[in-house]
Amino acid sequence: MPNRYALKLEYDGTAFVGWQRQANGVSVQALLEDAAAHLAGAPVTSVVAGRTDAGVHAAGQVAHIDLPHPYPTRAVRDALCHYLRPHPVVVLQAALVPDDWNARFSAIGRDYRYAILNRPSRPALLDHRVWHVKRPLDVPSMARAAGLLLGRHDFSSFRAAACQANSPWRTLDRLEVTRDGDHIIIRAEARSFLHHQVRNMAGALKLVGEGRWSVDRVGQVLAAADRRAGGPTAPAAGLTLVGVRYPEDPFAG
Amino acid sequence: MPNRYALKLEYDGTAFVGWQRQANGVSVQALLEDAAAHLAGAPVTSVVAGRTDAGVHAAGQVAHIDLPHPYPTRAVRDALCHYLRPHPVVVLQAALVPDDWNARFSAIGRDYRYAILNRPSRPALLDHRVWHVKRPLDVPSMARAAGLLLGRHDFSSFRAAACQANSPWRTLDRLEVTRDGDHIIIRAEARSFLHHQVRNMAGALKLVGEGRWSVDRVGQVLAAADRRAGGPTAPAAGLTLVGVRYPEDPFAG
Repeated sequence: MPNRYALKLEYDGTAFVGWQRQANGVSVQALLEDAAAHLAGAPVTSVVAGRTDAGVHAAGQVAHIDLPHPYPTRAVRDALCHYLRPHPVVVLQAALVPDDWNARFSAIGRDYRYAILNRPSRPALLDHRVWHVKRPLDVPSMARAAGLLLGRHDFSSFRAAACQANSPWRTLDRLEVTRDGDHIIIRAEARSFLHHQVRNMAGALKLVGEGRWSVDRVGQVLAAADRRAGGPTAPAAGLTLVGVRYPEDPFAG
Repeated sequence: MPNRYALKLEYDGTAFVGWQRQANGVSVQALLEDAAAHLAGAPVTSVVAGRTDAGVHAAGQVAHIDLPHPYPTRAVRDALCHYLRPHPVVVLQAALVPDDWNARFSAIGRDYRYAILNRPSRPALLDHRVWHVKRPLDVPSMARAAGLLLGRHDFSSFRAAACQANSPWRTLDRLEVTRDGDHIIIRAEARSFLHHQVRNMAGALKLVGEGRWSVDRVGQVLAAADRRAGGPTAPAAGLTLVGVRYPEDPFAG
């Protein structure tokens, strides 16, 4: 009988090769599994809701691990935070979940935020956290274009070549573009996303904001269902996995 | 006839000895004056509205410089940003101002934000930007205590020993404490502040939030007019100079 713990994680992705363990650098997965192995005294593997790419951040990533012994959830949180030092990765909450609960397969929604800093001067306070775009962007046009992507579509035009998903069909539940001073925030929610989908949508919306693409062109690109029709991939630094939704919030208790 | 430029600056104070030029490390003043000297081809001195301490950040600091030749304001901004690379200091705006305009003495208000991250886990995304306080803080009590400090008072109890001001009397126009999830924000506005005043007020309010000080104790400490009665100085990392106010906004044009 495993003791399965759901973990809510925050990390700064700047220095990592991404979530997934890789030979060529430090991954969040390796740090978390090493920390859990210290706690458990035995190897531990993790399953994650969103395999974020290199440079992508998380404010509410969710993973699960099985530990050979039961621990109070606070002890799991605090011990993992301790062993994760000094890396910019922390466990915000830990919760005991049923053995058949799965951070990846039980998830019913992923919420992302893409941040653009839209001003002439480079960021001094938000370096590595935003996409710096100098030219003033037309946010109302970006928001109208975003509306064309809502709903169920073949998102092949916004899918990375390396994407391993079986189907290019996804249902986009939310894609909002708002401005707060120099900051433009794109919020994207779906049950799941294709590889690079949020960054590819952000790259296309930026072209609309610059006036280089019309609003309608985004609809045409979507209909083309061909990555060669899509725009550029927005930089990883602007993207943050804000949260993961489940039928019942495992951290609510 | 000098060509006087007002500059609005953003910087991450983490790695600096503070605004003021010092022998023992890199200051924002030295970086700005060096950058301006590159542009002018001659030495340039600056005058600043708020001499921030080591580790304190700025989102809207204001300084002025005199240049031997006139330049378009955009060129001043872009050239200074260029010469300030790769340091986390940027000029957001430059404006031509009258010869008798002074970034320090023309200012009629300084606006600061003090940020507390109030949760068990250390910050991964906001390291060096917040004061990490683990124990849950009672924000309504902090807000009531803050109200006792509003108005014109002898702020000796919240004044650093090294403070060089002639008088300990200041008028506090705003001191608000609000919570947004795990983030507690203290906003402070006054014509001017004593040295460490905002951080000393934040340190006292944190004791109230923890329940170690009553709300009334803050009023008693204020009345004592003695730094030995005050609480601890909150860490520099949580403090940001948000903006400086003038009778007319030099950057509005």
